[in-house]
Amino acid sequence: MAIVTFLSDFGLSDHYVAAVKASVLRGLPTAVIVDISHQVEVGDMGHAAYLLSSVFRDFPVGTVHIIGVSNSNERRPRSVVVEVEGHYFIGEDSGVFSLLSEQPATRMIALSGSAGTFAAQEVFGPVAARLASGEALEEVGIEISAINKYMPTRAKATKQQIAGNIVRVDHYGNLITNIMKHDFEAIMQINKYCPYEINFRREKIGIIHDHFFDVGPGECFVVFDSSGRLQIGILQGNGSELLGLMVNDQVFLDFKI
Amino acid sequence: MAIVTFLSDFGLSDHYVAAVKASVLRGLPTAVIVDISHQVEVGDMGHAAYLLSSVFRDFPVGTVHIIGVSNSNERRPRSVVVEVEGHYFIGEDSGVFSLLSEQPATRMIALSGSAGTFAAQEVFGPVAARLASGEALEEVGIEISAINKYMPTRAKATKQQIAGNIVRVDHYGNLITNIMKHDFEAIMQINKYCPYEINFRREKIGIIHDHFFDVGPGECFVVFDSSGRLQIGILQGNGSELLGLMVNDQVFLDFKI
Amino acid sequence: MAIVTFLSDFGLSDHYVAAVKASVLRGLPTAVIVDISHQVEVGDMGHAAYLLSSVFRDFPVGTVHIIGVSNSNERRPRSVVVEVEGHYFIGEDSGVFSLLSEQPATRMIALSGSAGTFAAQEVFGPVAARLASGEALEEVGIEISAINKYMPTRAKATKQQIAGNIVRVDHYGNLITNIMKHDFEAIMQINKYCPYEINFRREKIGIIHDHFFDVGPGECFVVFDSSGRLQIGILQGNGSELLGLMVNDQVFLDFKI
Repeated sequence: MAIVTFLSDFGLSDHYVAAVKASVLRGLPTAVIVDISHQVEVGDMGHAAYLLSSVFRDFPVGTVHIIGVSNSNERRPRSVVVEVEGHYFIGEDSGVFSLLSEQPATRMIALSGSAGTFAAQEVFGPVAARLASGEALEEVGIEISAINKYMPTRAKATKQQIAGNIVRVDHYGNLITNIMKHDFEAIMQINKYCPYEINFRREKIGIIHDHFFDVGPGECFVVFDSSGRLQIGILQGNGSELLGLMVNDQVFLDFKI
Repeated sequence: MAIVTFLSDFGLSDHYVAAVKASVLRGLPTAVIVDISHQVEVGDMGHAAYLLSSVFRDFPVGTVHIIGVSNSNERRPRSVVVEVEGHYFIGEDSGVFSLLSEQPATRMIALSGSAGTFAAQEVFGPVAARLASGEALEEVGIEISAINKYMPTRAKATKQQIAGNIVRVDHYGNLITNIMKHDFEAIMQINKYCPYEINFRREKIGIIHDHFFDVGPGECFVVFDSSGRLQIGILQGNGSELLGLMVNDQVFLDFKI
Repeated sequence: MAIVTFLSDFGLSDHYVAAVKASVLRGLPTAVIVDISHQVEVGDMGHAAYLLSSVFRDFPVGTVHIIGVSNSNERRPRSVVVEVEGHYFIGEDSGVFSLLSEQPATRMIALSGSAGTFAAQEVFGPVAARLASGEALEEVGIEISAINKYMPTRAKATKQQIAGNIVRVDHYGNLITNIMKHDFEAIMQINKYCPYEINFRREKIGIIHDHFFDVGPGECFVVFDSSGRLQIGILQGNGSELLGLMVNDQVFLDFKI
């Protein structure tokens, strides 16, 4: 069973999502199509990259991922397939593919274009079906040596401090940051497991919890989530509203060495 | 084809739903996953129980149902599988499982826990795949003799009256109550099919219709829905708004004996 | 793999969509069910017809389409299956089926009814499963010679002008009209490719672009979309809000002969 995932900013009140799925099923009737989300903010590549980078590794190597989000300023945006960590990503060469992993893309393919106005249906879906059918990457287009890149907003880590940002407020109002568990652990080891403090706005929290439930209802938790990101929230409450924090706000992890 | 249904309060703008589906497909690539809804009000076990109890019997016996709704106050909420009417329900032992059926659970299994913050992905999905693959219930955890329980808000039925409540306002504004058809029919038989009246707020309705369409547009209908629940609404209108009724409001069925 | 598509106004916060899918899977466990949308405006047959007519041809001939939208004023609305361009459409005989294609229905079948309140689950789903299983159309009901009809709001085309309307504002705020590419091309040929102008509200646009991206961000584009409909929007903006246009507003294509 070949899996094709599908992420877009198409919303759910038009026929656009179904049109793309039809174009996949036409090429591979047995494809298993899994929606990531179709409620990406329109043209928001940061949102798209955050969702996809958080979930793509949960799917088997070889999975094909369609990204139906566009924000091009170019007259003819290029369609590409990018291989990252053994997964195939198909979409507009907007720069989003550079935000999926710290590992570089292993192969990049330019697709011969769509004449029309709906590249996801005309190009991405049919190419996804071909790749999911086992066709080789080099069969579907022309190898290229570079794609567009975004500068990722990475946290800045020193021996004294990791300075990060909120990258997403989720459905629950939880605040997801770009402070990564592996960075925290590496610095803690260097610092011989010194005390630390999480600082944001006017709050100071002296511990990273193992679990949301380690605090009481209405209290603030700080955990590393299942994607390894530092996450801040309020148990049974909306952290974003209650703490007054939004995307891009700063979060500091200070080591008391 | 083994069916796994999935109900949650995860919303549709994050990657959480897809992460759980990936964890099912990893264990059983041929699983047919059917979404019930991911728009349960956050932590609302009454909403979750209403949806699931209304629909689970439409799926074949042996279907596995994942419930991704949590409202625990406990430090380490327990994950369980509960067998009810031949269906398997997996989720947090919140009490929700006691609201699914008037029949008692036939087996209850405690799952060995999730170390992390995302039990639905780490535990519920993989266990759902094992059960859907045909693994025996006792293989996936340890049998237990009791689960948490909620007191269901049942209608009170006497020879004179059934006194119930609105348990859900649906997408159309229709008002769904906990007054059940089988109770109505049993009392009608005792009362030798006497006249009756449905009373709510300032309205009096002297008949339960066979179908929505038995009234004209803008008029009030009262029917037993396909789940056997008394349902009140306005044809081609929003009953909740037009009648001024909300969840928990009272509805009376008075028998004129 | 037999495909069943499903379009409704059921929303996503109830169990209704899952109940219908269960009724399809009970009849045909291997059915591939593709959601078109469940966020059709309640009872809006124009919205339903627009979505379905835009996408049904993307699915293979023989696909079965369930329409769960009702707006009947009749006491017992009839359930029908209508064959159009080799596709099967199942739903309430509301008139919606007359809006799907300019080609007439080739066969029309009345279904023996639903006794209850949920025809989509009780009748449409099971009949969809039977048709998707390969059962002949005449097996599922009684052939009839006419169905209800809506008058389609077609654009009026002369040698001088095509006068159309906006039929849908999509998720992006793009304005989709009933001015069709084939009409435009036919008149252009007659007019020997004369200059033309698109007029709406106070805007005049002298060209139909090949692609959204042929204008700069914030500028107005006019394209024929993948369904052949004239579409107006603002690149990287909400055309409906920025241009002050809504459903039913007029759009003119004037030929300068």
